[in-house]
Amino acid sequence: MNGNEFGRLFRVTTFGESHGEAMGVTVSGCPAGLELDEADVQRELDRRKPGQSQITTSRGEPDTVSIKSGTQDGYTTGTPIGMVIQNKDARSGKYEPFITAPRPSHGDFTYSAKFGTRNWGGGGRSSARETANWVAAGAIAKKILASEGIEIRAHVNQIGEIEAPDVSFEAMGEHVEENEVRCAHPETAERMRERIDEYQEEGDSIGGAIEFEIRGAPRGLGAPRFDSVPARLGQAMLSVPAATSFEFGLGREARRYRGSERNEDWEFDDDGDPIPVGNDHGGLQGGITTGQPIRGEVTLHAPTSIPQKQTTVDWETGEEKEAQVIGRHDPVLPPRGVPVVEAMAALTMVDFMLLGGRVNPDRLDGDVGEYDTDYHPSSPENDPDAPTSAEPTED
Amino acid sequence: MNGNEFGRLFRVTTFGESHGEAMGVTVSGCPAGLELDEADVQRELDRRKPGQSQITTSRGEPDTVSIKSGTQDGYTTGTPIGMVIQNKDARSGKYEPFITAPRPSHGDFTYSAKFGTRNWGGGGRSSARETANWVAAGAIAKKILASEGIEIRAHVNQIGEIEAPDVSFEAMGEHVEENEVRCAHPETAERMRERIDEYQEEGDSIGGAIEFEIRGAPRGLGAPRFDSVPARLGQAMLSVPAATSFEFGLGREARRYRGSERNEDWEFDDDGDPIPVGNDHGGLQGGITTGQPIRGEVTLHAPTSIPQKQTTVDWETGEEKEAQVIGRHDPVLPPRGVPVVEAMAALTMVDFMLLGGRVNPDRLDGDVGEYDTDYHPSSPENDPDAPTSAEPTED
Amino acid sequence: MNGNEFGRLFRVTTFGESHGEAMGVTVSGCPAGLELDEADVQRELDRRKPGQSQITTSRGEPDTVSIKSGTQDGYTTGTPIGMVIQNKDARSGKYEPFITAPRPSHGDFTYSAKFGTRNWGGGGRSSARETANWVAAGAIAKKILASEGIEIRAHVNQIGEIEAPDVSFEAMGEHVEENEVRCAHPETAERMRERIDEYQEEGDSIGGAIEFEIRGAPRGLGAPRFDSVPARLGQAMLSVPAATSFEFGLGREARRYRGSERNEDWEFDDDGDPIPVGNDHGGLQGGITTGQPIRGEVTLHAPTSIPQKQTTVDWETGEEKEAQVIGRHDPVLPPRGVPVVEAMAALTMVDFMLLGGRVNPDRLDGDVGEYDTDYHPSSPENDPDAPTSAEPTED
Amino acid sequence: MNGNEFGRLFRVTTFGESHGEAMGVTVSGCPAGLELDEADVQRELDRRKPGQSQITTSRGEPDTVSIKSGTQDGYTTGTPIGMVIQNKDARSGKYEPFITAPRPSHGDFTYSAKFGTRNWGGGGRSSARETANWVAAGAIAKKILASEGIEIRAHVNQIGEIEAPDVSFEAMGEHVEENEVRCAHPETAERMRERIDEYQEEGDSIGGAIEFEIRGAPRGLGAPRFDSVPARLGQAMLSVPAATSFEFGLGREARRYRGSERNEDWEFDDDGDPIPVGNDHGGLQGGITTGQPIRGEVTLHAPTSIPQKQTTVDWETGEEKEAQVIGRHDPVLPPRGVPVVEAMAALTMVDFMLLGGRVNPDRLDGDVGEYDTDYHPSSPENDPDAPTSAEPTED
Repeated sequence: MNGNEFGRLFRVTTFGESHGEAMGVTVSGCPAGLELDEADVQRELDRRKPGQSQITTSRGEPDTVSIKSGTQDGYTTGTPIGMVIQNKDARSGKYEPFITAPRPSHGDFTYSAKFGTRNWGGGGRSSARETANWVAAGAIAKKILASEGIEIRAHVNQIGEIEAPDVSFEAMGEHVEENEVRCAHPETAERMRERIDEYQEEGDSIGGAIEFEIRGAPRGLGAPRFDSVPARLGQAMLSVPAATSFEFGLGREARRYRGSERNEDWEFDDDGDPIPVGNDHGGLQGGITTGQPIRGEVTLHAPTSIPQKQTTVDWETGEEKEAQVIGRHDPVLPPRGVPVVEAMAALTMVDFMLLGGRVNPDRLDGDVGEYDTDYHPSSPENDPDAPTSAEPTED
Repeated sequence: MNGNEFGRLFRVTTFGESHGEAMGVTVSGCPAGLELDEADVQRELDRRKPGQSQITTSRGEPDTVSIKSGTQDGYTTGTPIGMVIQNKDARSGKYEPFITAPRPSHGDFTYSAKFGTRNWGGGGRSSARETANWVAAGAIAKKILASEGIEIRAHVNQIGEIEAPDVSFEAMGEHVEENEVRCAHPETAERMRERIDEYQEEGDSIGGAIEFEIRGAPRGLGAPRFDSVPARLGQAMLSVPAATSFEFGLGREARRYRGSERNEDWEFDDDGDPIPVGNDHGGLQGGITTGQPIRGEVTLHAPTSIPQKQTTVDWETGEEKEAQVIGRHDPVLPPRGVPVVEAMAALTMVDFMLLGGRVNPDRLDGDVGEYDTDYHPSSPENDPDAPTSAEPTED
Repeated sequence: MNGNEFGRLFRVTTFGESHGEAMGVTVSGCPAGLELDEADVQRELDRRKPGQSQITTSRGEPDTVSIKSGTQDGYTTGTPIGMVIQNKDARSGKYEPFITAPRPSHGDFTYSAKFGTRNWGGGGRSSARETANWVAAGAIAKKILASEGIEIRAHVNQIGEIEAPDVSFEAMGEHVEENEVRCAHPETAERMRERIDEYQEEGDSIGGAIEFEIRGAPRGLGAPRFDSVPARLGQAMLSVPAATSFEFGLGREARRYRGSERNEDWEFDDDGDPIPVGNDHGGLQGGITTGQPIRGEVTLHAPTSIPQKQTTVDWETGEEKEAQVIGRHDPVLPPRGVPVVEAMAALTMVDFMLLGGRVNPDRLDGDVGEYDTDYHPSSPENDPDAPTSAEPTED
Repeated sequence: MNGNEFGRLFRVTTFGESHGEAMGVTVSGCPAGLELDEADVQRELDRRKPGQSQITTSRGEPDTVSIKSGTQDGYTTGTPIGMVIQNKDARSGKYEPFITAPRPSHGDFTYSAKFGTRNWGGGGRSSARETANWVAAGAIAKKILASEGIEIRAHVNQIGEIEAPDVSFEAMGEHVEENEVRCAHPETAERMRERIDEYQEEGDSIGGAIEFEIRGAPRGLGAPRFDSVPARLGQAMLSVPAATSFEFGLGREARRYRGSERNEDWEFDDDGDPIPVGNDHGGLQGGITTGQPIRGEVTLHAPTSIPQKQTTVDWETGEEKEAQVIGRHDPVLPPRGVPVVEAMAALTMVDFMLLGGRVNPDRLDGDVGEYDTDYHPSSPENDPDAPTSAEPTED
């Protein structure tokens, strides 16, 4: 309703502005018994954080997460998980000239039009800094999905004119974290990297795209029409800052295909269940999972913060003025967008898994077989012969 | 949650299967005082109904709507509007061989996997017949939007390889209903039509695309990120049967643009308010409306029902068999999809308008200035000198 | 949001006005495989319908339900169940003097204030006729609950000053439908009945109360705090027309109890699981079910439609006038309220059962063991050797 | 869905356990332009915090709130407001003997049954400590309501057998904070206080009740049936820990009233608008506000944490054991419940006000007339002649 909540059973609620005190996210509906510590979340945040390479903004944010609730002795308790990420390099006292003069193609003007107010600290809530919250929540979603054999991978498949050839799911796993561009095709990654350097030198930025694949989703997920998997993935992906298109399966190209070309016959899989002979449908038929890999793609436009001189108008003075966004910025969004797209895919899928009753609590705790979800966790402190006195509950 | 509800304040809830007794839709949250009768809804339904031309299925459904509640003396009362569309040509008794053998690329198998059951009457709930409900609800949304000066138009901009050139909003208004393809560029429409005939003769079907434009939306609508206008339009459009992509503004092409190309300077409009100098952003910056036209595009894959022989498997017998979908079918979806896309755009926008507090009750009733929304409608039956007795309320 | 939707996974959406064309309810989220026909629903509707006895309004409504979707061959398909109840005795053309002069303590004025309009046909949407929709939906909920061993019973435990003594769950089952008052204590029922006749003769009405009990709910249902069982039952029961209080367990009396009196020790039940030694907590501790019977109570104020002369004001003329509600009315609400309270309890509990993943599809179909929910229902029409042709899906 | 979210447009999402690191609440949907600082919130938290008097637990929690987002220069920005309250006296390392032996009538067993796990730190999420989050959010709701002339007051009207006589709204304002019991009738307060001391000396606790009144709500709020004001207040009040009943207007007593007694004639108020001659309906007719004061009452059972010896069972050892809750506890809940009930009433009403479009942004900022909500806040930093450079938005 207010744009900071996602999911139905597995719900994410966020707060925080670019130059505010902290970002924060509450994850509600996470099942009890999942092994979880801050390192699990930090690992994903580190993939998104600024300053990780020369092609990302130099803003110095460690993006250190602190889990405030919802876990006990390293396991989730089933209650809301509150996480806070302190902003360090917010420069909130910094001089800000754009309060009444919107930056070109940023959300400055539209946010002012919506709220009748203006947040002048680095875009405030319109900043992509918000996606740190998503990645933190997504890290939890990924762990649950992993317990059910579902894995999500993404990579940068286009930067400007440079397109990567088709890559396998395995290649994504192997190569994405090997290069700063996060393209799973090493040679293309190198070309992309060089091209990005050129844009950066020219004081410009460039658009790109991210492709993702979801493996292991069981058949039968999704509630057509309005809560179909494509509809919810569409909402998820078009929530990503700078996203201008979402496609799945043949995507935009499906318009050129005949029915006889795109239709897929059925055969039996090894278990004797029906399976389509191809995957032009991208893992989704009638809006519901077939059990095959779900493939989708998202376009991200070029960063709007560029160090070139541009023109804006000041609504206080009624005058035109020059707009130049100086300082730190990303020349291209997809490399840091990869963990964001993965997180949104994970949040979408874990919600469908819970709605479909497909998350088995017994599988959540991985190797920790002694974790007892019958009534309660085993714990070193758990001593049934202990004397009978306790803290009262009422606050 | 269950896939049959859309919207937050202006809510649509649907029921009905292809070969069931009736389709139905409840519209909740429609403001009181809107002039509305069945003809308003029927007009839109007639644009979607089967059998309207030679390039649509010959199924004989008049799609006659009956409004069961929510209006009084030709005006909405603010209470839920129940609408029912009887199915006439459902052939529910007809023999159905595909109960345990899914048709290629239909939703047969996935629905069975989801529900553990199978609806064998023409696809049941997975049928695009459901969109009749959306068009009925959308007709009401369009009337409310019109009272605020918002208009939505769509047309078919691609069929297979044939692309229409850019057309203006005015051209859409003029030409869309002139031809059976619903392409706003007459010459292209003719070429599309010929090509469709060829596919039909070949016993095949073909994909295509629909472009839409929303005019008159005020600036400041949308709640980034998860309830941004792109996110909600994305959900809406990817709910449309056969949709495989949604784009807005530069869409997929934005990946090839530099920031300096795509960024739009600001100037003042005639009222002295800031306005971007172009519309590469498609009316949406930071996920919120700028006040400029919103442009989007949806791909619809080729109809999966084709009269060619295909292969399927029967999960009861464990045998392969031939699948041939005989009888009535559409060779291409976009012509009948135009009112569906318009409806979903309207449902999305009216919800944002209500959430933004932008629907003025005083403007709802158009020319009927005497309509008194202070406390109650003026009415011929309203005679304050009448004797004081009445029907009791309790049922 | 708009007051006509209830539930999260098992969702009910209603429409209809007292003197409109029809009432209607869409049930979304009902699992597939439940045996269901119109008689199942009709049985419950007959308990609520007007004209069933001399202490109910004489309005002649058969309240015949028609199921429009969501079932096939007598089983639910998992898709939305649309139900319509035609209004027969609506007298919509009838003269109505109260358009601008609100009846005492009805919803006339508040509905006008809310919507800026007035529905003059028997209270329109504010009529308790709406509860027919709830009872229809509740009938389905009850069937699902029964498959999991959960049963709900209610009875009238107070009319005016006359209170029934405590009665057992078994007594409710035995005696409620034996008398027109629906009090499970036969002698008290007789006294109530006599007293109601007196009120009716005096041209007056009287308040009363309904007590309900839910048996068989498993422990662990409810999501404190805002979605606790008490919170959701509270919303459900205070939605009932004329409800002015809701209590559970010791209810209002709990204020007089010491902790040492009300606290219940724990013992082991026959299965060796902990169970409280009493049920002062009404089956709910910390807002979650303990597995013991859930007991609650609802007060319904006296019907506001009485044949006495009362005073109102006309906002058009600015004059005071006499208000006399003539014609058919109920002298007391609880007897017909019993199936309504049961329905709301059932809708609340089935939603918690689904949210808790506690509805087992295999148990839904009762005796019909051959019903195959692996992929699809067995059906006489299901013949895998049939020729391979079918109706197309696209409308 | 998960029990930690309340409201539709004005939404509250909470996290935190009794002995966890911190409590936290995100308020989404608060309009921009409200003057707000931490002191506004702290004032209310101080009324609820433990250790404020001798009849509250001695747990040493300052309950200091920190606002992490959603404000700028002392005004709300319209974006989510994140608040965190650090737990200081959590004693999380403390020895806990009740892990597998539930305390009598606490939520220990039911939480374990729900989640399959157990939080052994002071009740974890089932602790009333959660209500600190509500009071923090309610403080913001109260400020918005105040800008529209709506005020909420509550007091303790019963402790055990001791009932307060009827008190006026003015008396509530005058006397509630004068005494530790928070009863608006000073003599009764003194008697209550003495009685509480006796219970405390006896090592026991006692139940009680809170009455509240909402003044200034405009007519026309509420969406019957399921989102009526009584239904939503019912959900709100029965979410309060230890609540066992909710009543409004005549409440439970309405069952004894005749229609002719309870019905209220209409007269004209000073503005010439219809107004009921009494308020037996408690400000609500047909579930919608009449504009008159809304009166309600909530029962809170006795605290379950008492220092007496009780009996429990250990599900690990299968043995009975003695349960004695030692340490800090409240002998009675209503005194600290007063701000909690006020907060829940405020959260309910502000949501209805926003849904009804009744919050005027221009009135939000009270005396600060220079606050410009046309596009943006005036601010000392706002200098339109400043050079044109700025922080980039992208993180």
